Amino acid sequence: MTKPVLNVGLVGSGFMGRCHANAFRAVGGLFDLPVDIHLHTLADIDDDTATLQARKLGFAHATGDWHTLINNPDIDLVAITAPNALHEAITLAAINAGKNVYCEKPLSTTCESAKRMTDAAEQAGTTTLVGFNFLRNPLVHYAKGLIERGELGDIISFRGRHAEDYMGDPDTPHSFRTAVDGGGALADIGSHIVAMARFLIGPIAQVNAITETVHKTRPERPGSTVRKPVETDDVAHALLRFGNGAAGSIDVSWMMKGKTMDLSFDITGTKGALQFTQERMNELLVWTDKDGPGNGGFRKIETGPAHPPYGQFCPAPGHHLGFNDLKVIEVAELIDCIKQGKPHYTGFREGYEVQCTIDAMLASARHNHWVDVSDFIQP
Amino acid sequence: MTKPVLNVGLVGSGFMGRCHANAFRAVGGLFDLPVDIHLHTLADIDDDTATLQARKLGFAHATGDWHTLINNPDIDLVAITAPNALHEAITLAAINAGKNVYCEKPLSTTCESAKRMTDAAEQAGTTTLVGFNFLRNPLVHYAKGLIERGELGDIISFRGRHAEDYMGDPDTPHSFRTAVDGGGALADIGSHIVAMARFLIGPIAQVNAITETVHKTRPERPGSTVRKPVETDDVAHALLRFGNGAAGSIDVSWMMKGKTMDLSFDITGTKGALQFTQERMNELLVWTDKDGPGNGGFRKIETGPAHPPYGQFCPAPGHHLGFNDLKVIEVAELIDCIKQGKPHYTGFREGYEVQCTIDAMLASARHNHWVDVSDFIQP
Amino acid sequence: MTKPVLNVGLVGSGFMGRCHANAFRAVGGLFDLPVDIHLHTLADIDDDTATLQARKLGFAHATGDWHTLINNPDIDLVAITAPNALHEAITLAAINAGKNVYCEKPLSTTCESAKRMTDAAEQAGTTTLVGFNFLRNPLVHYAKGLIERGELGDIISFRGRHAEDYMGDPDTPHSFRTAVDGGGALADIGSHIVAMARFLIGPIAQVNAITETVHKTRPERPGSTVRKPVETDDVAHALLRFGNGAAGSIDVSWMMKGKTMDLSFDITGTKGALQFTQERMNELLVWTDKDGPGNGGFRKIETGPAHPPYGQFCPAPGHHLGFNDLKVIEVAELIDCIKQGKPHYTGFREGYEVQCTIDAMLASARHNHWVDVSDFIQP
Amino acid sequence: MTKPVLNVGLVGSGFMGRCHANAFRAVGGLFDLPVDIHLHTLADIDDDTATLQARKLGFAHATGDWHTLINNPDIDLVAITAPNALHEAITLAAINAGKNVYCEKPLSTTCESAKRMTDAAEQAGTTTLVGFNFLRNPLVHYAKGLIERGELGDIISFRGRHAEDYMGDPDTPHSFRTAVDGGGALADIGSHIVAMARFLIGPIAQVNAITETVHKTRPERPGSTVRKPVETDDVAHALLRFGNGAAGSIDVSWMMKGKTMDLSFDITGTKGALQFTQERMNELLVWTDKDGPGNGGFRKIETGPAHPPYGQFCPAPGHHLGFNDLKVIEVAELIDCIKQGKPHYTGFREGYEVQCTIDAMLASARHNHWVDVSDFIQP
Repeated sequence: MTKPVLNVGLVGSGFMGRCHANAFRAVGGLFDLPVDIHLHTLADIDDDTATLQARKLGFAHATGDWHTLINNPDIDLVAITAPNALHEAITLAAINAGKNVYCEKPLSTTCESAKRMTDAAEQAGTTTLVGFNFLRNPLVHYAKGLIERGELGDIISFRGRHAEDYMGDPDTPHSFRTAVDGGGALADIGSHIVAMARFLIGPIAQVNAITETVHKTRPERPGSTVRKPVETDDVAHALLRFGNGAAGSIDVSWMMKGKTMDLSFDITGTKGALQFTQERMNELLVWTDKDGPGNGGFRKIETGPAHPPYGQFCPAPGHHLGFNDLKVIEVAELIDCIKQGKPHYTGFREGYEVQCTIDAMLASARHNHWVDVSDFIQP
Repeated sequence: MTKPVLNVGLVGSGFMGRCHANAFRAVGGLFDLPVDIHLHTLADIDDDTATLQARKLGFAHATGDWHTLINNPDIDLVAITAPNALHEAITLAAINAGKNVYCEKPLSTTCESAKRMTDAAEQAGTTTLVGFNFLRNPLVHYAKGLIERGELGDIISFRGRHAEDYMGDPDTPHSFRTAVDGGGALADIGSHIVAMARFLIGPIAQVNAITETVHKTRPERPGSTVRKPVETDDVAHALLRFGNGAAGSIDVSWMMKGKTMDLSFDITGTKGALQFTQERMNELLVWTDKDGPGNGGFRKIETGPAHPPYGQFCPAPGHHLGFNDLKVIEVAELIDCIKQGKPHYTGFREGYEVQCTIDAMLASARHNHWVDVSDFIQP
Repeated sequence: MTKPVLNVGLVGSGFMGRCHANAFRAVGGLFDLPVDIHLHTLADIDDDTATLQARKLGFAHATGDWHTLINNPDIDLVAITAPNALHEAITLAAINAGKNVYCEKPLSTTCESAKRMTDAAEQAGTTTLVGFNFLRNPLVHYAKGLIERGELGDIISFRGRHAEDYMGDPDTPHSFRTAVDGGGALADIGSHIVAMARFLIGPIAQVNAITETVHKTRPERPGSTVRKPVETDDVAHALLRFGNGAAGSIDVSWMMKGKTMDLSFDITGTKGALQFTQERMNELLVWTDKDGPGNGGFRKIETGPAHPPYGQFCPAPGHHLGFNDLKVIEVAELIDCIKQGKPHYTGFREGYEVQCTIDAMLASARHNHWVDVSDFIQP
Repeated sequence: MTKPVLNVGLVGSGFMGRCHANAFRAVGGLFDLPVDIHLHTLADIDDDTATLQARKLGFAHATGDWHTLINNPDIDLVAITAPNALHEAITLAAINAGKNVYCEKPLSTTCESAKRMTDAAEQAGTTTLVGFNFLRNPLVHYAKGLIERGELGDIISFRGRHAEDYMGDPDTPHSFRTAVDGGGALADIGSHIVAMARFLIGPIAQVNAITETVHKTRPERPGSTVRKPVETDDVAHALLRFGNGAAGSIDVSWMMKGKTMDLSFDITGTKGALQFTQERMNELLVWTDKDGPGNGGFRKIETGPAHPPYGQFCPAPGHHLGFNDLKVIEVAELIDCIKQGKPHYTGFREGYEVQCTIDAMLASARHNHWVDVSDFIQP
């Protein structure tokens, strides 16, 4: 009658750490989970920080050393929101300790590192998930259903974008975002639109990209007057050839003025079309031929109970989902996979392949020609 | 160093009950509260239901008798999401027991009842809040700030609406929504736009309304083939004269095809204008004269960190809020008022006056002429 | 083989005069007319002005005395864009001389005057048209077709507006727009939304209105420092009961900040809904139940060849119509009626009844109660 | 006192021929021209067609042989809307006869041909104009002004599109549109977005493109059951490097479902951004940094009197322009250039360079690598 307990350990309590914690807190009240979630341990940079945050976020225990968390045999699931450069070490330790792992994107700072993580996870047979939260949107799943059922006909082209403006100020200093390994707009946010393209259309076979570094120098660190050169991209445009023959393009920018989360796509098939932007995440525009001349138009479909798992949040339409709800859905999907012992679509393998696709784009931009993405993916 | 605990008792675990529970679960991870919230007791229609739901929603105790919850001296705050007809009895008992009360709208099924609740609360000096959740939107507060600072000039007119479609099917049966006391579209959802109008512009002095009953009969109960007459309104249109001289109109419908939550308003002043719909709750359209001829236009302002308390949910822009987040903000505001011992703007007094304004509209529609809202409000 | 010639006389060459002239110039190249249009004579305030404008606008003759134009037996059609106060005199003379008459709205400055014009036209059997140009939009006709074919079910409610901002500046001086006879926002632009409501839904049986005079004084004349009181309305809100049972409201303002031509309506029926604004005159939003739960949405229908007479302007979709094109359609409709000897829907009778409906609203606002529109219309 | 006459000869009376004719008819009533326009001669495929169309469109004379038109010394301006394959022959003859030439886009079916036309025109010193009508939009000029005045800062990227759906049906037969010389979506409509990109940002230095032929065969001719292979592109995606360092991409499709005229662009600079689509040709979205955090948003600017030459069409805002009005503006600009003896921005030189840019894209797609556009443009 009582449910088994799933003990969660969280590493990191920054922006995404809090977001994970809140999703774990909320999910049980919204979804009919097969387990009771227990917020077991929070690990952070030192004991004080960890204790403070554990208390705030509702974890029972705290530690300044993530190894302690990993080594605790009670913990079933390790959620990693630590700096990207630490993802591999924590993950490999966690997998070695038999844990399931929920890792924020990007999986790691290099493809080689991501590959080691993926191999380890696959050998261990553990359940993994990379936090491509935007793919949890019920309308994105509805869109995929339309495509899979052929309601748009054969897909002709995909035009995508991820544009924000958080690096638009030339005085925003260097950080992990501008690190040579894993930095740049393409790696930081381009991964979202690449993951979206793969989810909706399929693997990308060939890419050809341009990158720009608009602000050539940035302060060495916050408040510093010393400026250091920037070696990563601020803006990218890429052509895509999908494995199934569709073509397309994406553009990525972290200095697109006026844009806060324009993760958007236009998809055209021989019988219909879709449009979406995360800036109106509760709306999907759908056009199909069926209405006939003069009566047809893009329909603005709003998220509602007919688009699962919206109904877990509200039984009535009109009560829109927010960003944090996507993270709750992500956690619910992860728990479902853990309990059923099945892989999640955006497990480490997918995280790795997205990262390789980004690497292929960067290589294309450096070498100024088309590249085969398969050259960048190890089997 | 440890915070005091605020023990919460919840009566009812339907749609809004779950929504309350989830807000209480989430709020501590998002806001820096002065208390630790403890989900103490859930009361529901019988012990089994209460036990099941308490477990699911995370309450420590359960009871099939709400008196037990009220009589527990440990409980500090009673949240009421029981059927409207029970609001008064539960509230009066709670106030009598010295509790703070968080009651879903409408406050009660009649103004007389709502008045008794308000009087009791004011005499007891307890903190109360009526769940006008849409007023918690950061952009609605931003809009109010623009108005208060005079950026729109003198307000000329207000055009508002609350339109949904959940009663559009003539075979949707009778329920509390169609009860003569407290039923009808105006009472059920019109209260949201009336509360919004009062919040943004000020009290409404005079009203003149039309109501329509579109579906004249409905099934007696779910599945029944027996149809009974409907005595409440499906649609209403009303003219408004505000106390400060502005004029306006609202329309309300629970059978507006294609609308799921069109709680919307257009406000015009002598220097600027606003537009908003809850269907795009993260956007506010603002027009001011300052841009000059040819350069001006409605600006689409997106919710972000500059609009508190958005920053509690995410430090970065572009991570839109959802409906459930509004309820979290509501709970945070309530707790703040409780701790500071100050009344909340939408306390029982406001809930009562909104209800009286609705009553005035219904009376106007029955009698086919203008009525003074003050005739319907007891001091 | 050659077509008969239709000789046109135009009285007035201001904004609308030029608009008429250009429509008469253009229509023959766009529509397959049964006549050749000849721009015969332009009458204006004096000979010099008339000569200059005739030359510019392409009229063969010019006169400073409109009687000369009326008395010319060659002229078949008199288009009147002179000041409203002259409409009656010119029209009665024209009808007396056997001419067809195309008169800008409002038909006249008072209902009594408009009635005399209507009676004269009906007795003479001449073809008349009042310039409600917005009703010529192909999408407005498409909307009417949807309603007439029952695709929206029974119409429940109509919410309309005509909002602009051309009198928002308190230093805009008095003019015919603020004259006691025929002035005010309701008369000047409210007539457009009343005409639209009647066209789409049917006659309005009862009205109840509020009017506001926001700017209480205005300069006596352009540049004057002497300010005189304003006795007409700047803003109006009205409730409507249609003859067929539908209810609704409109609001009218010539000081709605940020609005340039928000002639807009939302119409709801038991099975569907429509939304339109003249500010996006090539788009109509349509919702019908047929798409089913989760798949439905407002469809954005764009004007195209399936919406006659769009095809006269362009054989391909995507080539949007502009305001001046509506006037060309109006002229084409008028010529068709003249040739077929049949009345036009917006003949003088309709112009008169629209004006009476406005008068009823103004009376309602003065007397603060509902009025029957039929009390204001002479048969 | 009387103006000189400008005699116009038009070759072709199809869709664009009628459009030209109507623009010439209308322009004098709307603009203060330095000339009186006389519709002198219409040339078409045979005498009967020409006579019929001349009568309909208002030309004084007609001929079945365009040489007759060219050889008439009275004619000052030759407008060419004949099939693309005839553009060169007619143009060279017209220039040889000393005429000014107004030619529909594309200038010719090959770049070599377009170069010969350009050279001839430049040697003769005649005024030429290629019909890139979308560049006549007052809001496009307003956008260019914002860019030129630096209000967007340095331009970072341009994302453009021209998408329609007129070739989406696989049974739409072969025609000039699918001819190997000059056919394909890129040449047919991609030229519009290339011309727009050049107008707003500047010359494009390098391109890299993908093209797709979605419908591999089409009926040989209308109604035919014989299908022939299609050798031209249906869809294209291209990366762009501009001469001034900005980067970008465009996509072009004549089978983008639901799109009728999505000639659109997003432009980002270091201080602001723009968005536009021809499907809402009276609106421009503008974002600039100046409003400050929390108050900024894309402003929806509507065409109005502050955006010349809107005021020629209407002195008041809110009276939107349509597609045909763009052609009237084009004619007015052309006449102004002719009278002042100055070249027009979209003279033959620009038409030629646009065409070369398209050719470079097609070459890039064939060869699968970047190409320098300068290799395709002769000086």
